[in-house]
Amino acid sequence: MKHISILGSTGSIGQSTLSVIDSHRERFLVSALAAGRDIDGLARQVIKYRPRLVSVAHEADIVVLRKKLESLDPDSLPEIVSGEAGLVAAASLDGVDLVVSATVGAVGFLPTYKALSLGRRVCLANKETLVMAGELMTRAARESGAELLPVDSEHNALHQCMRGEQISEVKRLILTASGGPFRTSTIEQMRAASVEEALAHPTWQMGSKITIDSATLMNKGLEVIEAGWLFGFAADRISVAVHPQSIVHSMIEMVDGSIIAQLGVTDMRLMIQYALTYPERLPSELPPLGFEKLSKLEFFEPDFERFPCLRLAYEAMREGGTMPAAMSAANEVAVASFLQRRISFMDIPAVIEATMFSHDKHPCSSIEAVLEADRSARFAAETLVAGRASVVG
Amino acid sequence: MKHISILGSTGSIGQSTLSVIDSHRERFLVSALAAGRDIDGLARQVIKYRPRLVSVAHEADIVVLRKKLESLDPDSLPEIVSGEAGLVAAASLDGVDLVVSATVGAVGFLPTYKALSLGRRVCLANKETLVMAGELMTRAARESGAELLPVDSEHNALHQCMRGEQISEVKRLILTASGGPFRTSTIEQMRAASVEEALAHPTWQMGSKITIDSATLMNKGLEVIEAGWLFGFAADRISVAVHPQSIVHSMIEMVDGSIIAQLGVTDMRLMIQYALTYPERLPSELPPLGFEKLSKLEFFEPDFERFPCLRLAYEAMREGGTMPAAMSAANEVAVASFLQRRISFMDIPAVIEATMFSHDKHPCSSIEAVLEADRSARFAAETLVAGRASVVG
Repeated sequence: MKHISILGSTGSIGQSTLSVIDSHRERFLVSALAAGRDIDGLARQVIKYRPRLVSVAHEADIVVLRKKLESLDPDSLPEIVSGEAGLVAAASLDGVDLVVSATVGAVGFLPTYKALSLGRRVCLANKETLVMAGELMTRAARESGAELLPVDSEHNALHQCMRGEQISEVKRLILTASGGPFRTSTIEQMRAASVEEALAHPTWQMGSKITIDSATLMNKGLEVIEAGWLFGFAADRISVAVHPQSIVHSMIEMVDGSIIAQLGVTDMRLMIQYALTYPERLPSELPPLGFEKLSKLEFFEPDFERFPCLRLAYEAMREGGTMPAAMSAANEVAVASFLQRRISFMDIPAVIEATMFSHDKHPCSSIEAVLEADRSARFAAETLVAGRASVVG
Repeated sequence: MKHISILGSTGSIGQSTLSVIDSHRERFLVSALAAGRDIDGLARQVIKYRPRLVSVAHEADIVVLRKKLESLDPDSLPEIVSGEAGLVAAASLDGVDLVVSATVGAVGFLPTYKALSLGRRVCLANKETLVMAGELMTRAARESGAELLPVDSEHNALHQCMRGEQISEVKRLILTASGGPFRTSTIEQMRAASVEEALAHPTWQMGSKITIDSATLMNKGLEVIEAGWLFGFAADRISVAVHPQSIVHSMIEMVDGSIIAQLGVTDMRLMIQYALTYPERLPSELPPLGFEKLSKLEFFEPDFERFPCLRLAYEAMREGGTMPAAMSAANEVAVASFLQRRISFMDIPAVIEATMFSHDKHPCSSIEAVLEADRSARFAAETLVAGRASVVG
C-alpha cells in the first residue's frame, strides 16, 4: 500500500490522480490533500478519501472547510493547515511514499524540494519547479535517492521511450507540441487574440495558466528546460515538433538514427498511473488508441517568429543560472495579466523578454537565490505590465 | 573484435550487412561467406573481406569461384565448400561469434539451428526458419544461451520497443505492413496481376520472393508467426496494421494503453547494425528521419478477403505443430511458380490453402518431423501447381 500526498488535489491533474487511485484502491491510500481556492471540491475529496492532513491556500478557508466537514465523525477529521507551510507539511507528512506535485506555478517549489530531500518519489506535474531550480531539485533527488517521475505527457513519454536505453546513446529528445489554438494563425490575428480564443485549446483540457502557455508555446519552452533537467540534456539536444493531433506524446532519436516514440490517447490518467506505479504498468480502463486516430499524423518545425516564447525559453536555458527562474516568473505575471485583460496576447513575450533583459543573473546555488530571482522578476514584470496596461487602458 | 559468418552474403540483406561492417571495420571480421548463384558477386566479396571459409550453393560452382580468385595469393585462399553442408559449415565455423542468417526460404533452417545450438548470436533475416520450426529454434537457443536477434525491420522494431518492458505488461504486438503494390487494388485487378506488377514494391527494395510475399501479405503472415516465437505471443495478441509509408516499423501496446513505436528511415542497415551491436547502439551514417517524412502517416486494418495469405498464416499459427512449416513450404512453391508464370497471383493463396487442407499435421518435435512436413507440403503444392498450370496453359 502506497501512501500518497497530492498537492493541487482539486486541479485537473489532482482530480485525474484521484480517478487513477479510484481504479486501484487496493494499492494507494490518500494521506494528504492540498488545494487552493476550491474549498467545496476539497471538502468532497476529504469526505471521500479521509486523508490525515489537509492544506488550503488561505488561512481563512480553514474554518470554511471545517464547517463543510461537520458531518464527519470528529475523530476522523483531518488536521487542517494552510499556506506554503501547509503545502510543505503535506509534502513531508510522516509515512508518505509518493508526492504528486500538481500545484500551478512557483508555489510548488518548496514542497517539491522538501519531498525530494526526504527521498520520496515525486510525481511531478508542476513544471515551474524544475524550470526555476532544476539544479537544486535534481541534486536533492540524487543525494536522497528520491525518484522524480514526470507526469507531463511529453516527459512521461520520454521516460517511457528511454526505459531500455542508455542516455549516452540518445542523440536528441523530440518533444511534441499541439501548436495550440494559434498554430495556423497569422501574427496579426495573434496580436488581436482574445482571452477566449487563447483558452480554446484544440486537444487537451487543462487549467487556464497552462492553456495560455500552450497558446504562446511557452509551455513547450518550459518543457524543453524541464526535459533538460530530468534527463540531463543540453538545449541543442532537445527539439520541438509541432504535432497537432497530440497522439505522439514525444520521441527520442538514437545515435543510430532509430526513433522511439510513445503514443496514446490524450488522457492524463495514463501518465499519472505510469508515474505512480513505475516500473510496473497496470491495466487501465481507458479506451485503446484506434488505428483511425493514428492516421494522418502531422509533424512540423515550430515557428519561432510567431512564438517568441519558445525562443526565449531556449535562450534562458542556454544562459542558465537564475535566468530560467526569472523567465518563468515573468511568464506567470504576464499570463495572469493577459487573463485579466490588462495586456494583449503578444505582450506576453514582450514582458518576458524585457524582464529577462533586465534580470541580474546569478548562479542557481541556493533556494534563496532562486526565490530572489523569482521575486525580482515578478516585480520587474509587474512594473512592465503596469506601464503597458496604462498605455492599453 | 566480433567474427561474423554471413549466410546469404550476395543477397540484399547480405550486402547491407557488409555495408554496415564497412562502417565499423574495427569491430567486425568476416570469417565466412555463403552465397547462392551469384558467383561473381561472391568472388568480389571474398577478395575484399578475405573470409576463411566460403560456401556456394552448387558444387559445380566451386571451380568457377576458384578460377575467379586466381589473383589471390594461394596462402590466403579460403576453404570453399558447397550445398547445405557448406552452409552448416559456415554457420558452425570455429571462432565465429555472430551468424547472419539471410538466406531465402527453407535452406536457412539447418545452419541456423546449428548456430543456435552452438550458443552463437544469430541475426535472423530468414523468417522461414522460425515459421518452420520456432519451437525447435527457440528451445535450442534457450538451452545453449544463444541470442536470437531479429533483422526483419518489424521484429527489430519490436525488439527495440520491448527493451525496457516486461513481456507480461505487453498487451499486443502491432506489426506494420506497407500493404504492398496491391494495397488499393480491387480483387479483379489482383486476379489479373502480372509478375512485374507484383514485383513493384512501393517502399522497400528486396529480393523477389519476399517482394511477392509482401504483395500477398504472406510476408506479414510469416512475420506474425515469427513474432509469436521471438517474443512468446499467441496469435490473438499480434495484430497487423497496414501503414503505407513504412516509417513506423512496428509498435507494442502496453496493458496501460500506452503505445511504444519504433520509427526510422527505410534502410535495412539500421536494423542489421542494431542486431549486430545490441545492446550497444552505434552512430550510423544514414540520414536522419525528417519531420516531413513523419507527416501524413496512415494506418488501416488489413483486408483479409483480398489478402487470404494473411488469414492462412494466422490459421496455421493457431493450428501449430507442423502446419506453419507446411504453409511456408507451399508458399515457396506457389511464389516460385507465380514468378515462372505457371500460376496466377491469386492462385498463390489457393495453392497454399489446398496444401494446408491436405496436410497431415504432426507435433513439431524434431528436425525430421519439420523436414518431412516441408517435403510433403512441397510435393503437394507442386502437384497442385502442375494441375493448375496445365489448366492455365
